[in-house]
Amino acid sequence: MTFTVAVAGASGYAGGEMLRVLLAHPEAQIGTLTAHSNAGTLLGAHQPHLRSLADRVLAPTGVDELAGHDVVVLALPHGASGAIAAELEARGDGAIVVDLGADHRLADAGDWEEFYGSAHAGTWPYGLPELLHPGERTATGQRAALAAARRIAVPGCNVTAVTLGLQPGIAAGLIEPTDLVAVLANGYSGAGKSLKTHLLASEALGAAQPYAVGGTHRHIPEIAQNLRSAGAADVTISFTPTLVPMARGILATATARLAAGVDPAAVRAAWEQTYADEPFVHLLPEGHWPTTAATLGANTALVQVAVDERAGRVVTVTAIDNLVKGTAGGALQSLNLALGLPESLGLPLDGVAP
Amino acid sequence: MTFTVAVAGASGYAGGEMLRVLLAHPEAQIGTLTAHSNAGTLLGAHQPHLRSLADRVLAPTGVDELAGHDVVVLALPHGASGAIAAELEARGDGAIVVDLGADHRLADAGDWEEFYGSAHAGTWPYGLPELLHPGERTATGQRAALAAARRIAVPGCNVTAVTLGLQPGIAAGLIEPTDLVAVLANGYSGAGKSLKTHLLASEALGAAQPYAVGGTHRHIPEIAQNLRSAGAADVTISFTPTLVPMARGILATATARLAAGVDPAAVRAAWEQTYADEPFVHLLPEGHWPTTAATLGANTALVQVAVDERAGRVVTVTAIDNLVKGTAGGALQSLNLALGLPESLGLPLDGVAP
Amino acid sequence: MTFTVAVAGASGYAGGEMLRVLLAHPEAQIGTLTAHSNAGTLLGAHQPHLRSLADRVLAPTGVDELAGHDVVVLALPHGASGAIAAELEARGDGAIVVDLGADHRLADAGDWEEFYGSAHAGTWPYGLPELLHPGERTATGQRAALAAARRIAVPGCNVTAVTLGLQPGIAAGLIEPTDLVAVLANGYSGAGKSLKTHLLASEALGAAQPYAVGGTHRHIPEIAQNLRSAGAADVTISFTPTLVPMARGILATATARLAAGVDPAAVRAAWEQTYADEPFVHLLPEGHWPTTAATLGANTALVQVAVDERAGRVVTVTAIDNLVKGTAGGALQSLNLALGLPESLGLPLDGVAP
Amino acid sequence: MTFTVAVAGASGYAGGEMLRVLLAHPEAQIGTLTAHSNAGTLLGAHQPHLRSLADRVLAPTGVDELAGHDVVVLALPHGASGAIAAELEARGDGAIVVDLGADHRLADAGDWEEFYGSAHAGTWPYGLPELLHPGERTATGQRAALAAARRIAVPGCNVTAVTLGLQPGIAAGLIEPTDLVAVLANGYSGAGKSLKTHLLASEALGAAQPYAVGGTHRHIPEIAQNLRSAGAADVTISFTPTLVPMARGILATATARLAAGVDPAAVRAAWEQTYADEPFVHLLPEGHWPTTAATLGANTALVQVAVDERAGRVVTVTAIDNLVKGTAGGALQSLNLALGLPESLGLPLDGVAP
Repeated sequence: MTFTVAVAGASGYAGGEMLRVLLAHPEAQIGTLTAHSNAGTLLGAHQPHLRSLADRVLAPTGVDELAGHDVVVLALPHGASGAIAAELEARGDGAIVVDLGADHRLADAGDWEEFYGSAHAGTWPYGLPELLHPGERTATGQRAALAAARRIAVPGCNVTAVTLGLQPGIAAGLIEPTDLVAVLANGYSGAGKSLKTHLLASEALGAAQPYAVGGTHRHIPEIAQNLRSAGAADVTISFTPTLVPMARGILATATARLAAGVDPAAVRAAWEQTYADEPFVHLLPEGHWPTTAATLGANTALVQVAVDERAGRVVTVTAIDNLVKGTAGGALQSLNLALGLPESLGLPLDGVAP
Repeated sequence: MTFTVAVAGASGYAGGEMLRVLLAHPEAQIGTLTAHSNAGTLLGAHQPHLRSLADRVLAPTGVDELAGHDVVVLALPHGASGAIAAELEARGDGAIVVDLGADHRLADAGDWEEFYGSAHAGTWPYGLPELLHPGERTATGQRAALAAARRIAVPGCNVTAVTLGLQPGIAAGLIEPTDLVAVLANGYSGAGKSLKTHLLASEALGAAQPYAVGGTHRHIPEIAQNLRSAGAADVTISFTPTLVPMARGILATATARLAAGVDPAAVRAAWEQTYADEPFVHLLPEGHWPTTAATLGANTALVQVAVDERAGRVVTVTAIDNLVKGTAGGALQSLNLALGLPESLGLPLDGVAP
Repeated sequence: MTFTVAVAGASGYAGGEMLRVLLAHPEAQIGTLTAHSNAGTLLGAHQPHLRSLADRVLAPTGVDELAGHDVVVLALPHGASGAIAAELEARGDGAIVVDLGADHRLADAGDWEEFYGSAHAGTWPYGLPELLHPGERTATGQRAALAAARRIAVPGCNVTAVTLGLQPGIAAGLIEPTDLVAVLANGYSGAGKSLKTHLLASEALGAAQPYAVGGTHRHIPEIAQNLRSAGAADVTISFTPTLVPMARGILATATARLAAGVDPAAVRAAWEQTYADEPFVHLLPEGHWPTTAATLGANTALVQVAVDERAGRVVTVTAIDNLVKGTAGGALQSLNLALGLPESLGLPLDGVAP
Repeated sequence: MTFTVAVAGASGYAGGEMLRVLLAHPEAQIGTLTAHSNAGTLLGAHQPHLRSLADRVLAPTGVDELAGHDVVVLALPHGASGAIAAELEARGDGAIVVDLGADHRLADAGDWEEFYGSAHAGTWPYGLPELLHPGERTATGQRAALAAARRIAVPGCNVTAVTLGLQPGIAAGLIEPTDLVAVLANGYSGAGKSLKTHLLASEALGAAQPYAVGGTHRHIPEIAQNLRSAGAADVTISFTPTLVPMARGILATATARLAAGVDPAAVRAAWEQTYADEPFVHLLPEGHWPTTAATLGANTALVQVAVDERAGRVVTVTAIDNLVKGTAGGALQSLNLALGLPESLGLPLDGVAP
């Protein structure tokens, strides 16, 4: 079942990665590619690794260019996708629209306005097939929702890592959701191609630096929303990302207090149950710990969990490639479901290492 | 007041850094340098950056070689320093002995035996001048202890970072010491020169990987000991270090629940009070966050604190150079006190960046 | 045309990469995997990125284990493959044998003995399909040789980069082969997983360091052999590799004096002619320069050429992924030819960036 | 002999490093600091590693602000220093002016106009004390010139590395200056703090990329000028810099054909003779090769030389820290001479490693 796909924002990192995973998909046919300031130039000038598409000319990002495809992927700055989706709908274009940006992730307009400071664009089906629904221990509800979706809001990359790390314990009632702490090591591509001094190589090499400390990061309400989906009545999380000298990857260390009366020996079984049959989320054997290097280029999430009995906390560590499972791979996985294709079709399971 | 100093373990990373800071000290005269398997070779083969000492021949590590100096610095594997110190004492050698290893840090023999699995070598004065004593808001007691010391146990590098981040809040009663969470980004030199696969450049480049997860790291009881010194009745801490692709540096994100009834607006003042007059521990201006790059080669600790009111947690971030403030610089700072010299004499305040 | 393949040395970097490219090949079925000291352990412990094969148990490296496959790939230390290939042949095993090591690359036994210091194991068909034969301007002869081959000697990674950069000018008689100079920036995976101090992350991060300087590198006679194949009567090359802080990649800057009487404006055309129809070797548009990042994980070589008229030299820059086009991808490309499959079948054209 | 110094361009990398070396100088008193777009802000916001000066406010870059000091250091974009120096002179300001930019390096106005495309600002005494003059085998003439100088043109960082590597062989007549080839591995700080896509961390991490290939780099005529000073009648050099993932450092591999009739065994002695007594340029013992890591933060150049008899070429490798020996340290070394101070006073001999 071949489908055509247009990608808006093809000269950026998220757009480029979307193209990379689409190129490996057996049913995808890549149609129009658009850009804003780079319109009129060759894709090869911006994505020299995508040899298959080096000679493609970038069109301007407009509804005329994007219309007429089976799928439209929007890899645009936050705030830009709502209007385009509305225009496509207004002209009766039947495309499935996949938004890699944040605009349609949050269900609560108040959350949106507080963290993003603009009017809420509405809520789309959430592109995390592994998300647990209330009462679930393995994810089926979100898959069903995506199978019926014509609009997909792809999760934030940090959100994916933290959600996958914590949700089995939440769903099983083993950990308390009201005093979560997550600290992440993040590769620089998560910050996009924007020209800012702290993103320069000279500043990054040899440096670890935090950002959005103290509860200000926009991914916080999205994590809370997901953990409520997995069964938490209320979620409180301290969340701190830190930039470290790598181009890709997220290593999320997320900890939670063990719920009262829980037998520590029972903890691992909850994670095993939730992820035993997941194609892309892998609980590692005991004693092995995730490294981001093992996820480079792959749609996998590697998860480990331990109980620190002295501290009374469960510690989870999750590694993903922020651009694959955290963005473009997760998007394609969800799109497969929306298109009625096998969920894993064409997605990379094996990473590139060392 | 010139003093002579011998360094045992001079071909390793800690020993090399000890030499680097001693070379810049106006009163230090570097005497015998020793090594184990590298004995008989030139220091320049192992520490090519120490041009001043390139032609020094490494002696074997023995009491005969180390005796007769004003100061002996032991940069040896854990477990090796107790016997040497005892032998020096037995033969009446009057040297001040500085142990960069862990052997003499812990006051509680049970802690030692649980985390290190060997017999406790005893407790020496602890080489962290900034450590708060019970009832203190600025550090004077530990300085007095070091001024009288003939033996110095230099703190663990991670311990220094976490202690400096959290102790002002503990001392001021603003944060709860029973549910602390610390996650660290660590440079590879903290692991020493040992030949292990996960320390290879091919494994490290592009990778973030945790180690000693789940409450097993040996620095945990040492952190607890320090925070009890600062006033905590009882300490519980979840502690997770993660290796990231840099040679040096620790970025410690340490969080604690705000104590009941504390006004968030009062938090910053506690950190200001404790560190206002410290020569090497600097609370950054509001809105600035520490980066390890700004501490490279310097004896500084850069600290920032924020209150995440939604999460009910104080978040502290501390950056140090693990080999300087975390090891050799901290050692020299303590040694200055023991020698009756100005505490800051000869220590690097300005780092090397970018 | 499905084929089965055994890989000897599967826990190392070259063996792991061979598995990665084979996993993406539509006709390959991965059979026995062997290792030396790691025999009996799971592949997942050594190659955590290869999720598809995480539960495979490594067999010991022996002919009993390797026999009975359509293809055997040897990813072994230099000197180990000759005996295994002979044993396989002796017992009548019909496998195509692909040697990722150096043993069978050199045609001249004297070269072998001088640079490797052991007895010459013989010469196998050389696994570089793009290698020009005498009189050729586009590569057909080597492809024909490989189509008939049952044994394949995969080129050295540095050799591939330098050969591809220089051979068009040699074949066209535009550059002098007697005063070539090549300097390379090399990622650490080229050195393998061996535990040596200079390969530690602490030594590599922030460092550029040369090795095998002054004409001692074993790839020198192999480069000369290739350039003679492309038409040089005699080859003299100064060759210096330098390790730089990246896990993968080779950037080879290779320069040659412009031959007497050559019109500089004619130079680019020679490279265009040789590579215009190559599936994996791409001459970049004028003004664009190769970066290793654009080849990560791909079987591509990106080439650029310029004439420095003031210096009288042609400068070529070639970027490859040392483990793909430089090793496992090049091997699979040659194997496709030997198996009668389309040369590009299953090989990655698009890289992983940023 | 205390002196006051103003630094123009203090928020950039070169200006920041100038401050770092001045802070360690026993006679320097740091006066006015200026910036262009950052005027009015605190230095600590731009140079967080310079704790000693964190609270200094940046003045605008103007002659009123810079006048009245003993020394003015200009760390400005190319083309900006000539006018300021002229204005200072016009108002009778007696400061020694040190230009870290390129404006006053080249003696030949035609070279300047060809490579920089603007009017030549004039030629100042050249700030490389180790530069050989015609007929010299050890450097004394340039030191004499600097001792009498009131204006100093600090060399380009790449130029320093290549000149130091090759000049002993030129001066001794052992190598031919007409077919030199230099390829460099360069850290990113050499490109300054400018916001360009190819300087982003995401682009740099894991990548080696060349720039200014094919004889266009502005440092080429400056290298030629220096090697003519060392005795070359005519100089031809192919020069290619490549960016590699490190913040600092240059590793220059520079090769030259052995002159006719030269005994290879005599080569090393020429380098030994030239550098035996140099305080900062060190010929390493045979068999040891320079690494940039051993020069980080130090004013040293580490040099090695080998003869590749098969290739008929001498290969030299030189490692420096581009911001120290390549810029600010070299500047201060020259300034010491101009001020009549000991040449090595206050300069870092020992680097920061690992």
